Amino acid sequence: MEKIGVALIGTGFMGKCHAMAYGAVKAAFGDVPAIERAALCDVDEAHARKCAAEFGFARATTDWRDLLKDPGIQLISITSPNGLHREMAVAALAAGKHVWCEKPMALTLADAEAMTAAAAKAKGQATALGYGYLRNPALQFARKLIAQGAIGEVFDFRGSVDEDYMADPLIPWSWRLTRKDAGLGTLGDLTVHLVSLAQELMGNFESLCAMVDVVHGQRPVQGSDKTAAVENDDIAHALVRFASGARGVLTSSRIAHGRKNGLKIEVHGSKGMLWLDNERMNELNLYVADGPREERGFRRILAGPYHPAYDRLCPAPGHGLGFNELKVIELAELLYAVTGRPSQPVDFARGFSIEKVIHAFARSAESGTWTKID
Amino acid sequence: MEKIGVALIGTGFMGKCHAMAYGAVKAAFGDVPAIERAALCDVDEAHARKCAAEFGFARATTDWRDLLKDPGIQLISITSPNGLHREMAVAALAAGKHVWCEKPMALTLADAEAMTAAAAKAKGQATALGYGYLRNPALQFARKLIAQGAIGEVFDFRGSVDEDYMADPLIPWSWRLTRKDAGLGTLGDLTVHLVSLAQELMGNFESLCAMVDVVHGQRPVQGSDKTAAVENDDIAHALVRFASGARGVLTSSRIAHGRKNGLKIEVHGSKGMLWLDNERMNELNLYVADGPREERGFRRILAGPYHPAYDRLCPAPGHGLGFNELKVIELAELLYAVTGRPSQPVDFARGFSIEKVIHAFARSAESGTWTKID
Amino acid sequence: MEKIGVALIGTGFMGKCHAMAYGAVKAAFGDVPAIERAALCDVDEAHARKCAAEFGFARATTDWRDLLKDPGIQLISITSPNGLHREMAVAALAAGKHVWCEKPMALTLADAEAMTAAAAKAKGQATALGYGYLRNPALQFARKLIAQGAIGEVFDFRGSVDEDYMADPLIPWSWRLTRKDAGLGTLGDLTVHLVSLAQELMGNFESLCAMVDVVHGQRPVQGSDKTAAVENDDIAHALVRFASGARGVLTSSRIAHGRKNGLKIEVHGSKGMLWLDNERMNELNLYVADGPREERGFRRILAGPYHPAYDRLCPAPGHGLGFNELKVIELAELLYAVTGRPSQPVDFARGFSIEKVIHAFARSAESGTWTKID
Amino acid sequence: MEKIGVALIGTGFMGKCHAMAYGAVKAAFGDVPAIERAALCDVDEAHARKCAAEFGFARATTDWRDLLKDPGIQLISITSPNGLHREMAVAALAAGKHVWCEKPMALTLADAEAMTAAAAKAKGQATALGYGYLRNPALQFARKLIAQGAIGEVFDFRGSVDEDYMADPLIPWSWRLTRKDAGLGTLGDLTVHLVSLAQELMGNFESLCAMVDVVHGQRPVQGSDKTAAVENDDIAHALVRFASGARGVLTSSRIAHGRKNGLKIEVHGSKGMLWLDNERMNELNLYVADGPREERGFRRILAGPYHPAYDRLCPAPGHGLGFNELKVIELAELLYAVTGRPSQPVDFARGFSIEKVIHAFARSAESGTWTKID
Repeated sequence: MEKIGVALIGTGFMGKCHAMAYGAVKAAFGDVPAIERAALCDVDEAHARKCAAEFGFARATTDWRDLLKDPGIQLISITSPNGLHREMAVAALAAGKHVWCEKPMALTLADAEAMTAAAAKAKGQATALGYGYLRNPALQFARKLIAQGAIGEVFDFRGSVDEDYMADPLIPWSWRLTRKDAGLGTLGDLTVHLVSLAQELMGNFESLCAMVDVVHGQRPVQGSDKTAAVENDDIAHALVRFASGARGVLTSSRIAHGRKNGLKIEVHGSKGMLWLDNERMNELNLYVADGPREERGFRRILAGPYHPAYDRLCPAPGHGLGFNELKVIELAELLYAVTGRPSQPVDFARGFSIEKVIHAFARSAESGTWTKID
Repeated sequence: MEKIGVALIGTGFMGKCHAMAYGAVKAAFGDVPAIERAALCDVDEAHARKCAAEFGFARATTDWRDLLKDPGIQLISITSPNGLHREMAVAALAAGKHVWCEKPMALTLADAEAMTAAAAKAKGQATALGYGYLRNPALQFARKLIAQGAIGEVFDFRGSVDEDYMADPLIPWSWRLTRKDAGLGTLGDLTVHLVSLAQELMGNFESLCAMVDVVHGQRPVQGSDKTAAVENDDIAHALVRFASGARGVLTSSRIAHGRKNGLKIEVHGSKGMLWLDNERMNELNLYVADGPREERGFRRILAGPYHPAYDRLCPAPGHGLGFNELKVIELAELLYAVTGRPSQPVDFARGFSIEKVIHAFARSAESGTWTKID
Repeated sequence: MEKIGVALIGTGFMGKCHAMAYGAVKAAFGDVPAIERAALCDVDEAHARKCAAEFGFARATTDWRDLLKDPGIQLISITSPNGLHREMAVAALAAGKHVWCEKPMALTLADAEAMTAAAAKAKGQATALGYGYLRNPALQFARKLIAQGAIGEVFDFRGSVDEDYMADPLIPWSWRLTRKDAGLGTLGDLTVHLVSLAQELMGNFESLCAMVDVVHGQRPVQGSDKTAAVENDDIAHALVRFASGARGVLTSSRIAHGRKNGLKIEVHGSKGMLWLDNERMNELNLYVADGPREERGFRRILAGPYHPAYDRLCPAPGHGLGFNELKVIELAELLYAVTGRPSQPVDFARGFSIEKVIHAFARSAESGTWTKID
Repeated sequence: MEKIGVALIGTGFMGKCHAMAYGAVKAAFGDVPAIERAALCDVDEAHARKCAAEFGFARATTDWRDLLKDPGIQLISITSPNGLHREMAVAALAAGKHVWCEKPMALTLADAEAMTAAAAKAKGQATALGYGYLRNPALQFARKLIAQGAIGEVFDFRGSVDEDYMADPLIPWSWRLTRKDAGLGTLGDLTVHLVSLAQELMGNFESLCAMVDVVHGQRPVQGSDKTAAVENDDIAHALVRFASGARGVLTSSRIAHGRKNGLKIEVHGSKGMLWLDNERMNELNLYVADGPREERGFRRILAGPYHPAYDRLCPAPGHGLGFNELKVIELAELLYAVTGRPSQPVDFARGFSIEKVIHAFARSAESGTWTKID
């Protein structure tokens, strides 16, 4: 496949991010198809046209279904509100398109299941979800170290994902705080990332016991002196057990002042430990219990070209990748899948397994008991 | 009281630490009684004599009961193995002595309760347990900031206490790994510290749900090719709820490679956040959500003379206190209590409340359910 | 100007970096001309064709002079070896093209002067040199803070730029280590960056006293058992005075083991201090001597959308830009200059002032005396 | 020698620090003489008596000459103002006493030379100066690593020593800012420490070229609306060459906002690098260029009992020593010298070599030229 036609639905944070990835992936990776930016869709026509021009798409539309019929489009990016993911993804798959959909997958577990079923039916079509942090070369190097036994048998995982975008109790109420329109809160926005990293390094979850709370229960309604109820979770913590027998603890919060991209993980093994912090995403910290005791310490390893796929974007170590570049790598993985090469996108089946975990959080917290994850 | 006669039982890590505190406290604090180092007790007579000479004690003995009768002794340090704490402390209190006892308080909750009852009966006698980390000026400054509302209403606590003294699975089996002789494992050695800090900053615990595991279940028996079973816990994690309505997560491990004094806490509030890491015990990190957004960030505050009781030991900020100096402050608090001044030692009643929490960990983990803490 | 045709000379580290910037700039900034990637030039024809395809250029050539005649090209990127910069840049300017040239500007001060003269003559044509670190939002925020007086009068600057790409003494000899073919060593590769940052924050240099050394004087000749002499500098340190009356110290090394992008600066002022480290380029550390003494500390400020031009690339704070994205901002500045908007590219005149400083290093080190910089 | 009688002159920051060291050294080290705290001297009689009681000295005096005749005193601590060091030290040595004198040694080079001559004459008497940072176990471990060749041949040294005790330009004028009464400024207070560390790790200085400035030239006179001139240096920077052929840069400032104990050093070698920062004095950072490139990084090594003399004060790694404990180690080194054991105090001869370097700073800065150090 020399060229692939792509369409983009949505022009927000993630829409622009997908657009930039489409513009960069061929230059960075070389061994992927060239990208034809065929069409961009946004509900606001003027905005759609403006974005199409800026993002380099050939045409603009306000009707996403219009994209399905276009034979020049093989891959569709879905970056619309989460409540639309199911309908769009299922339709796109039915129309024979590959799909790159942002996370969280869907509002409900049923929706995620339906999407997974649709993807399973659409043999030969690739799917990918927006779990760019998994593509961080430092994280993948951690995975490799663990697989090689560098830190021995891993038995304990500590992870947190904290941001402060809802930390101020006076941030106004919006539809994003309702179960009906936005689904889960922190669990869907943040915890999914942490779960994806835990899976990547520790394997499948077996069970968990969670505590999920709304802390700032009322928020002011803008343009009024009233408040309205926050329905979805601010905080979600859990004890977890993995299928391997290992254990761990996950904490998450969207009301954690000072944390901007506070996704941190620690993996404890019988021969060493490693940890990462997304706010310093180009660093991996590694402790190995060998050599003279007096020379041991955590090593701060700066990402470099010897940590794939850093080399595709930069040959100079320590110069640093940015958040957007993880999406370029994510896209490359998807394009490898599209072209039938070995690759590791977070496809819908994998995404569904992540959704199962966060919905188990919710169930466990309600019942106050340990909950199995099938 | 111009002078106070003291005796020391035990000459290990903590014994020497108490001895150095006795040597320093009057020079540092000035407003405490002068210390008469009357007698030192160790089971090995030659070693007792050697240590008495080095630590500056007037005489040595191998019989701790001998100290009880000595009218020149008003305060007794108990740094013997934990299994002896109850008998010694109860006898010392009965003999009218003030008691400075190392943590954990005792092997069992019943023992801790008996000690607490003995202390309650001994009106006018002061008790203190070895929770030196509470005396860290950076920690006490955190407490003051919280009390002043600097970070608003506190609603989430994250704490971990990790060391690696048992991390190598080939470290041999010993009596310290049995329930009978050593009681709890990580819970008694490490988690107690974390619980003490959580209490100090968040108030009383209301309930918890814990996961407590032996990870390295068999260890080699020295001088043999056999292994023996490890009975007490390597790892102890819990979800917790505080009486205030706040919540949190505590993690602990004695098998965490790379952590040497990894006691870290994070307190999340509605206006800010603060965190500390004992491996950098002279630093407090504070984020306050005020001022222009673009200038906000975590502030690394170096401990200095404006953080009591740092000034008693050093007038120069950033020069740093050490672990041993926290014990000097702990001793000063005890001496203030002895002389009837306002003070805040961790007395036996407070120590008992800590023991209740770690024993609730054990019960909760066995039952797999949330457990109340009375 | 709705569209601008661009050509790229060179396909190495910087060539690819320019190519990716061309692919991203319109999506990121919106308010710049759309980019027509017209032609790519490389001496190797097959490689030129391959790169043109991957980087999205319409055609490939092996003759850079061929680009000069193409009316569809208005802007030319020069990322060829430094010894070719002068000839290409002067010719491109003469042909009416805008020029984006990598640093260091040229092998000799005379070459840099000639380029500057050519740019001065070419009124209405914009030039830019590859000083992307100046475009770091965290650095520009530092500049703004200083301008606003946030740290008072600035009087001392400490800067270092260290990498380890030549640190191993067994790295073989190459033409890059000769004065004739490569010009200065660390001074041209690294010190120029540091000088550019010092200028940006402190203003013009007045004089300096330098120490410039070759440390690993002989390097093995590949495929032989001989060694050859290294002619250009491994290390360059200097005391400096600025026209403002402030002072400072600059250190640089290409043989500094462990440093991958070790560009660090510290600015001392009468009311505070700030520092940055390029290995953590999304962080600015700021200390302001106000508020209660016990609450003061260095604040780690994470770059975010309130630090221009971070917002053009990402709306989420702390998510982090990468090295390549600084080149996108650099390109946007150049395109603003091309379209006559206020902008701050490092044009040839500014670049020449940087070259004067590093050549003054060399002269001062030879004479062992303080040297004026005109 | 089983016991040694000691006297203390001065009761300020360093006086109290010496007192605490006398109280701790025998308990910590065991293999040193027991300390008899014989007499304390302060010019204020009531204060002398109060301090003698608190610091545990048998008697108090206001006449330091009175100590010279006391046969029960073998060692005298001099912590009085620097202008008195020469007279007291020379007299104490003449009276047959060992001397522990705080730094800087004296106001002038002539005074330091006279003290050195007196010490040379007093064979069998030990002298030590207050360079406690040299006793930091992390620093001594760095020295050992260098000696073992862990980082190869060392060729570059970067050091800074910055504090902010004079950073506010409104801090009032005092006699400490005059040449006559206080001698050098930052050079005597801070740079001496940096020079001592550079010597310890790099060997003797050969020459330097310095820049020494008064930045805040006038300071307010307290209780008046006038200002008075600051005569001694705020800032002192230098390029240096060592006798070994290595080079380096030293920077110092007493007006560096935010730095509380900012003594940092970096040693660059042909196989690796190491660095330390006194504000985190229990950490050594080490990079060694071996093993797979992708696993390399700076290792943060926490001080522990395997780093002598940490073990004398604490058996638990990572628990951390404090500033005061470095003085305990310093005292132990002096006591080893007193008792004829191998030891490494900074004696007067070594101290004189440090004074030569800082006075060379002053001369070089005045002449604006490179200056030899004999």
